[in-house]
Amino acid sequence: MIYVVGIGPGCYEQMTINAINALENSDVIVGYHVYIDLIKERFADKEFYQTPMMGEVDRCKKAIEIAKTGKTVSVISSGDSGVYGMATLVYELAEADIEIEVVAGVTAALSGGAVLGAPIAHDFSLISLSDLLTPYQLIKKRIDAVSSADMCIVIYNPSSKKRSAYLSECVDIIIKNQGEDIVCGVVRNIGRENTEYKLMTLKELKDYPVDMFCTVFIGNSQTKIINNKMITTRGYKIV
Amino acid sequence: MIYVVGIGPGCYEQMTINAINALENSDVIVGYHVYIDLIKERFADKEFYQTPMMGEVDRCKKAIEIAKTGKTVSVISSGDSGVYGMATLVYELAEADIEIEVVAGVTAALSGGAVLGAPIAHDFSLISLSDLLTPYQLIKKRIDAVSSADMCIVIYNPSSKKRSAYLSECVDIIIKNQGEDIVCGVVRNIGRENTEYKLMTLKELKDYPVDMFCTVFIGNSQTKIINNKMITTRGYKIV
Repeated sequence: MIYVVGIGPGCYEQMTINAINALENSDVIVGYHVYIDLIKERFADKEFYQTPMMGEVDRCKKAIEIAKTGKTVSVISSGDSGVYGMATLVYELAEADIEIEVVAGVTAALSGGAVLGAPIAHDFSLISLSDLLTPYQLIKKRIDAVSSADMCIVIYNPSSKKRSAYLSECVDIIIKNQGEDIVCGVVRNIGRENTEYKLMTLKELKDYPVDMFCTVFIGNSQTKIINNKMITTRGYKIV
Repeated sequence: MIYVVGIGPGCYEQMTINAINALENSDVIVGYHVYIDLIKERFADKEFYQTPMMGEVDRCKKAIEIAKTGKTVSVISSGDSGVYGMATLVYELAEADIEIEVVAGVTAALSGGAVLGAPIAHDFSLISLSDLLTPYQLIKKRIDAVSSADMCIVIYNPSSKKRSAYLSECVDIIIKNQGEDIVCGVVRNIGRENTEYKLMTLKELKDYPVDMFCTVFIGNSQTKIINNKMITTRGYKIV
């Protein structure tokens, strides 16, 4: 039996009861070492198997190997287990006779959205700027398509050393479609002790320094700043 | 103090610890009567204020009124509190001196995704077909934009009596961009006892009967059926 568990942004309080139950019912917990560190203390009686970044395939193969011995295994992802998470690989690699249960979790679009207020209250797109598995041309095409239809956008993996110019280039595409005054927000360290956020315009986002701990939110034409929060309005008559 | 709480798809087990704590710390819980019914038993010592469908503005005004008396109030949404949830209205209606905390929850794209396997493992868009507050022309423009960029799509509110043809018309737009063989899935009653799902092609989705209890998932060109689940592959080398 394999649970593929989304543990949310990092703190215990943002896990679901289902996620906690899955981990408690497991003999072994498998994951990227940074995520294992986040949960280790709460599940100290478990056996852990951790792998470095980029070790996704090995991690899943190991989980499947352990499940075949009759043990119950949880493979953990931060955020949700489906959204850029480990669920796909587990299904691709496991034989049909291994029972798999995917346990959903709060992805950064939701946990970061809660920090900012209500930035994705209407139709939105979630796009990763990581080009490890996706051509950058396709990423830019998606950014262009969704901003041309006035959709809110959440950007995961907004920066790394190798692709420091990507966010700025993508912002240029959005400015072309939406103008430079659209409300944006950046949240850093979601669900950790030192969570911080900053609101700005698209023009300011273009040169804003983001790192791998940031999630970027870009509003649509109906997004406003209300009481220092980023709020996408939906058109209710409120008078 | 107002908490705006996403309670997930309906069952207690898909709530986060933060959501449970917020409700436990509240004197009054305010919400649409169907969602109040879902949580009533677990929080039986609370005072409840429920309103019918479409009563969103009144509901928020009532919550603000109660908060002003010094009580702690939770306004609940199903799924997440930000995604088509109540957070926007609470911020729009409340005065700046009322403390507001948004508590994220598992939206149907994630909880339904877990039922199907891993349908939104890559860049995706969330689009509601409800035209109560959004012109249908804009909805179709968004469907066209995101499908032209090979993005997975999750459709909320896929049907109602007044707009029974919308899903079929939107599927036609997607077929034009993606062909009719794209893998799709429909999940019904997510998080309830009688959850069910069905996998199909876009062509089959065109005439598939959906209702207001359904969430629709449309894959991208890399989505496959593996072991009767809907899996969007990401391009990892798995051999």
